[in-house]
Amino acid sequence: MVAPFPQVEHQRVVLPEGLTLDCNVTIAPLAIAYRTYGRLNAARSNAVLICHALTGDQYVAETQPVTGKPGWWSNLVGPGLPVDTDRFFVICANVLGGCMGSTGPREPRTDGKGAPGDLWGTDFPTVTIRDMVRAQKKLVEQLGIERLLAVIGGSMGGMQVLEWAAEYPEAVFAAAPIACAAHHSAQNIAFHEVGRAAIHADPAWRGGRYWTDGTIPAQGLSVARMVAHITYLSEAALTRKFGRKLQGASAVTFLEDVFQVESYLRHQGSTFVRRFDANSYLTITRAMDYFDLANERGSVAAAFRGTDTRFFVASFSSDWLFPTSESRALVRALNAAAARVSFVEITTDKGHDAFLLDEPEFHRALGGFLSGAARELRV
Amino acid sequence: MVAPFPQVEHQRVVLPEGLTLDCNVTIAPLAIAYRTYGRLNAARSNAVLICHALTGDQYVAETQPVTGKPGWWSNLVGPGLPVDTDRFFVICANVLGGCMGSTGPREPRTDGKGAPGDLWGTDFPTVTIRDMVRAQKKLVEQLGIERLLAVIGGSMGGMQVLEWAAEYPEAVFAAAPIACAAHHSAQNIAFHEVGRAAIHADPAWRGGRYWTDGTIPAQGLSVARMVAHITYLSEAALTRKFGRKLQGASAVTFLEDVFQVESYLRHQGSTFVRRFDANSYLTITRAMDYFDLANERGSVAAAFRGTDTRFFVASFSSDWLFPTSESRALVRALNAAAARVSFVEITTDKGHDAFLLDEPEFHRALGGFLSGAARELRV
Repeated sequence: MVAPFPQVEHQRVVLPEGLTLDCNVTIAPLAIAYRTYGRLNAARSNAVLICHALTGDQYVAETQPVTGKPGWWSNLVGPGLPVDTDRFFVICANVLGGCMGSTGPREPRTDGKGAPGDLWGTDFPTVTIRDMVRAQKKLVEQLGIERLLAVIGGSMGGMQVLEWAAEYPEAVFAAAPIACAAHHSAQNIAFHEVGRAAIHADPAWRGGRYWTDGTIPAQGLSVARMVAHITYLSEAALTRKFGRKLQGASAVTFLEDVFQVESYLRHQGSTFVRRFDANSYLTITRAMDYFDLANERGSVAAAFRGTDTRFFVASFSSDWLFPTSESRALVRALNAAAARVSFVEITTDKGHDAFLLDEPEFHRALGGFLSGAARELRV
Repeated sequence: MVAPFPQVEHQRVVLPEGLTLDCNVTIAPLAIAYRTYGRLNAARSNAVLICHALTGDQYVAETQPVTGKPGWWSNLVGPGLPVDTDRFFVICANVLGGCMGSTGPREPRTDGKGAPGDLWGTDFPTVTIRDMVRAQKKLVEQLGIERLLAVIGGSMGGMQVLEWAAEYPEAVFAAAPIACAAHHSAQNIAFHEVGRAAIHADPAWRGGRYWTDGTIPAQGLSVARMVAHITYLSEAALTRKFGRKLQGASAVTFLEDVFQVESYLRHQGSTFVRRFDANSYLTITRAMDYFDLANERGSVAAAFRGTDTRFFVASFSSDWLFPTSESRALVRALNAAAARVSFVEITTDKGHDAFLLDEPEFHRALGGFLSGAARELRV
């Protein structure tokens, strides 16, 4: 029996008017947990919004309070780093549907239904990437910012960047969608569905109401993380890291966990469940699956027609979850929309995960793009 | 609660002397379930052994008795087909550790331990691909065949072909390892480990003794099949088949199973558990993970040094589970061993599954190789 991870205090704004979602449900009030780094200048022109990926959070450049580990992009965001917090006012918010303080399945339900003290659980409404972005827009307005110097994000964060640029072009001077695509592919949906099936199959999930007895569906969530984790790495990275190296034993011993890659994956699964909520995982993976920028807009190019936003698209050569071909298709659509766009494919064998790792060429390119945008805006 | 699939009668030989495995355990007696097609000629020179993949069985060219579906290679093996049963005597055996009648976890244990009537379950010893091949060798000898005209197999079947050629070169005139590799990669081990974790996480697995209460760990096994199934298809095939097509509903409705690819995967999972045993799945995936032809032989080339066997290696361009690069490495090793080898990469977008599907170029090439070998042997 595994207990849920501790609920800690998060900095947040609570908006009484709430938000009406794509599924036509209104959630009110709406809580958005967020962190900021650096100072907003007098012209309010140096704000950079960072959007996190599926299992990320708002603690982009500081210690994560649950795990005690460094912020997930602390190699990129900070004083003197490419996203320079001495120069920019950096904002990062926990996504709607997340589990680090923003309104989501792990928060008390506010629709008047259920018993007193009930959490949302699986009654939390279905959210989309656009809903997440709408919530962030409210936060940004609350902070008194009309236009963001830049919106930056990788993976699901990149999907949010694209929705920002498509929905609020006047509010996004520069946009950096990284290691993402204009829609979620059939293969990616399939991998997500395996993860969801594993969670649903865990009897401790209890139809989503596991919180009522203070446990979590640890085994199902762990399997979900294991399969997802494989997709974040490249075959080459797995081979380089582990190959067929044995765990402990000096020869094939016909025991469990003989290969290092197995212990590594199990470790990934078991640590993940101590920091992430299963119902949030269901909610957010579904939002990613629904993501299709062309939907209701005719085409990706149509989504960006007439935009003044400058784009920086980056992909990683060994990323097979969001392969370079998807970024190229995005660039072609941006070109068709006559948008200003630069594109870089980083050569690396680290797979999708590379966007989080020390990739000097990527960091230089992104830093350069951001500096250029800042110069244009005379920040 | 899901019941086990029906135990049907299978044709088999039972060898009282049994077999000593790589793990030093002797299993006796040893049962090998098998099927044959066509007639052995007077010279006993026209026998073709077909090795099945992870979830395959001996019913290669006839109705599978549990599912009622056609044999898994009935498009390739039969009268007038590339593996022509009018001309060749075709043998196919259920692998050691399987669940279609050969000695395996689903059979009564024969080590004198446990209660009367106990099945092997997870007490079944760990087996290797080489053990599977040793069992097949005994069957082939039992059938009075000294030398096989050819050994053919795809995926795990290809691994068996390689072990056959390495262990018994004098007994293999021609060998066709298809869509395989000389060892299992870290990524493939990782995917297998996810499947095993899903089975272990299912409380119905009951530490492997699910058979004692007449149920099966259906949900865990289903998740294992779902993730494996994704690896059998290419991204392109999934996109072509399903793309982002919705299931039933005409718009995104925020329900479960909205995408066709999800329903398809779930269907794959739920039908699989009605024909395959979870403990066999654990046993056989582990055997694949252990597979490393160079192990104890120095190198792949050393495994084939001095061989007279003719090799036909085939890969499929969109196969990312056993990519062409692995087949090329195998061909290089065979070249280094001065072996006779031909190689073909089939251009297809169907992924690993292509080796089971109607791929005319593959069928022509394999048929040609087999005919050439038969001519050389004057069959």
